[in-house]
Amino acid sequence: MLLEVIFYIAITAEAMTAALAAGRRKMDWFGVCVLACVTALGGGTFRDVVLGHYPLTWVENPYLLLICCAAAFVTIALARFMDALRWPFLLLDAVGLVVFTIIGCNVALTMGQPPIIVIVSGMMTGIVGGIARDILCNDVPLVFASELYATVSIVAGVLYYLGLQSGLPQDIVILATLAIGFGLRVAAIVWKVQMPKFVYDKKDLH
Amino acid sequence: MLLEVIFYIAITAEAMTAALAAGRRKMDWFGVCVLACVTALGGGTFRDVVLGHYPLTWVENPYLLLICCAAAFVTIALARFMDALRWPFLLLDAVGLVVFTIIGCNVALTMGQPPIIVIVSGMMTGIVGGIARDILCNDVPLVFASELYATVSIVAGVLYYLGLQSGLPQDIVILATLAIGFGLRVAAIVWKVQMPKFVYDKKDLH
Amino acid sequence: MLLEVIFYIAITAEAMTAALAAGRRKMDWFGVCVLACVTALGGGTFRDVVLGHYPLTWVENPYLLLICCAAAFVTIALARFMDALRWPFLLLDAVGLVVFTIIGCNVALTMGQPPIIVIVSGMMTGIVGGIARDILCNDVPLVFASELYATVSIVAGVLYYLGLQSGLPQDIVILATLAIGFGLRVAAIVWKVQMPKFVYDKKDLH
Repeated sequence: MLLEVIFYIAITAEAMTAALAAGRRKMDWFGVCVLACVTALGGGTFRDVVLGHYPLTWVENPYLLLICCAAAFVTIALARFMDALRWPFLLLDAVGLVVFTIIGCNVALTMGQPPIIVIVSGMMTGIVGGIARDILCNDVPLVFASELYATVSIVAGVLYYLGLQSGLPQDIVILATLAIGFGLRVAAIVWKVQMPKFVYDKKDLH
Repeated sequence: MLLEVIFYIAITAEAMTAALAAGRRKMDWFGVCVLACVTALGGGTFRDVVLGHYPLTWVENPYLLLICCAAAFVTIALARFMDALRWPFLLLDAVGLVVFTIIGCNVALTMGQPPIIVIVSGMMTGIVGGIARDILCNDVPLVFASELYATVSIVAGVLYYLGLQSGLPQDIVILATLAIGFGLRVAAIVWKVQMPKFVYDKKDLH
Repeated sequence: MLLEVIFYIAITAEAMTAALAAGRRKMDWFGVCVLACVTALGGGTFRDVVLGHYPLTWVENPYLLLICCAAAFVTIALARFMDALRWPFLLLDAVGLVVFTIIGCNVALTMGQPPIIVIVSGMMTGIVGGIARDILCNDVPLVFASELYATVSIVAGVLYYLGLQSGLPQDIVILATLAIGFGLRVAAIVWKVQMPKFVYDKKDLH
């Protein structure tokens, strides 16, 4: 199935960009592998723990861990070429964001969750891996202050949910969600579209 | 029921102070909403995951997420007046700490947990949201080095547990716990009462 | 049983080194206790949540929390002597790493998990406590860029799993795993053996 193929490509792409983030912090090979696994699989892990949806995807399919580690080592080996691959990775990351969102929505739908939780489940699957990566790298999560990312996930989730509700065939809804979500994310990168910032510079309440 | 009304007020107050913390890091509107939800609902989430108490509160009542996001946007809109509201928020936060503690104790009691876990469950509900907020803001958690906060939660939990054990009516025990916990926290703020610090300045063992 | 005795010693040693880390950040007594509990019990907690293995060890045996807090207070009281105890603690920490790994493997084996998850379960039990400690201290986790540590856990897990599969008596396998894992970790400290680093200094993809 298309969704599954894109899922593996997305996992690999997420693992590779995480490996580069690890390289920027001069982590060792073990740290690179952990960061790759956490970034690629962390969103689904968080979603499953929060929803009580056991067993977790990678516990059921442990070869996913091997794919992430393999992607990490490929990145180490090919690091010198990575800078030239900036755009391919940004595009794969955009596809991955929407695929992760759709998969997360599906998990919540299978569990019979209400609409808000379906959208939130898709969004958690899409963005929590990157948040965990940034926490392990000791950064404020990028997703809280950069080009539209979580917003793309939410829009994709809403479209996907409404599309399914409207009775359209699932394949059509998936393709439409992928196209619109991908286009929205790429547009946000190209034109540097950001959410408005909230700037508050009074001292801490505490 | 009184506890429930105060619970909603406390959720709102926690979300609003978290939104200010997000504004101090110049996060975008999405980041502000996430930080509001994580701070207000993170304690209960952590407690439920640790105790295996599914479904989580906000998964069962997803409108809690909407309340937190609404509180975040109100904070953004009224940011200029927030500095004048320092004391009301500190007081609401103190009430919230004790209410969260009582609710956390109740969850563990319902599950038949032993006394230590009842107290710890109350404390986790009271303080983990703030710890998650500080981690996402890339700070050392405030609760580890500031005016009595976790201690208030522990004292409130012990009082609540002993009160129930003594056979007093639950409403009386709740009111007494609220009064004493609130008074203790306010006293700690006013007189800057802190736990003793442990200062160790030898180099790392590793 | 030997494993259990060493488990308690290891819990205590982990809690004490965590207390020193808290002291370096000038945390208060409450923070010291939390950091001790999180470091000593965080690995098992993470493993159990990820595997859906309830109730958690310390929820079932809450006196483990008291042991960690007691160890924290002993550390505060004896802080001036701690510098002289650097080597004993490093050795206890090495034993603890292997014991935690074996216990984590056992949990996954009892659940009938596949080999990769058995090894990963052991490794999570061994290292996640330290990662949580470093996150709460606002550091990049030490385990991602220091002397062989996670690697020792993985090697110990593989040896333990293969030993059990080979049909040797469990006690023999435990002792052999302890001896080899301990020796490997001490050798890594003495000769400063590290995993190769991945250094990537191009700017961020995002």
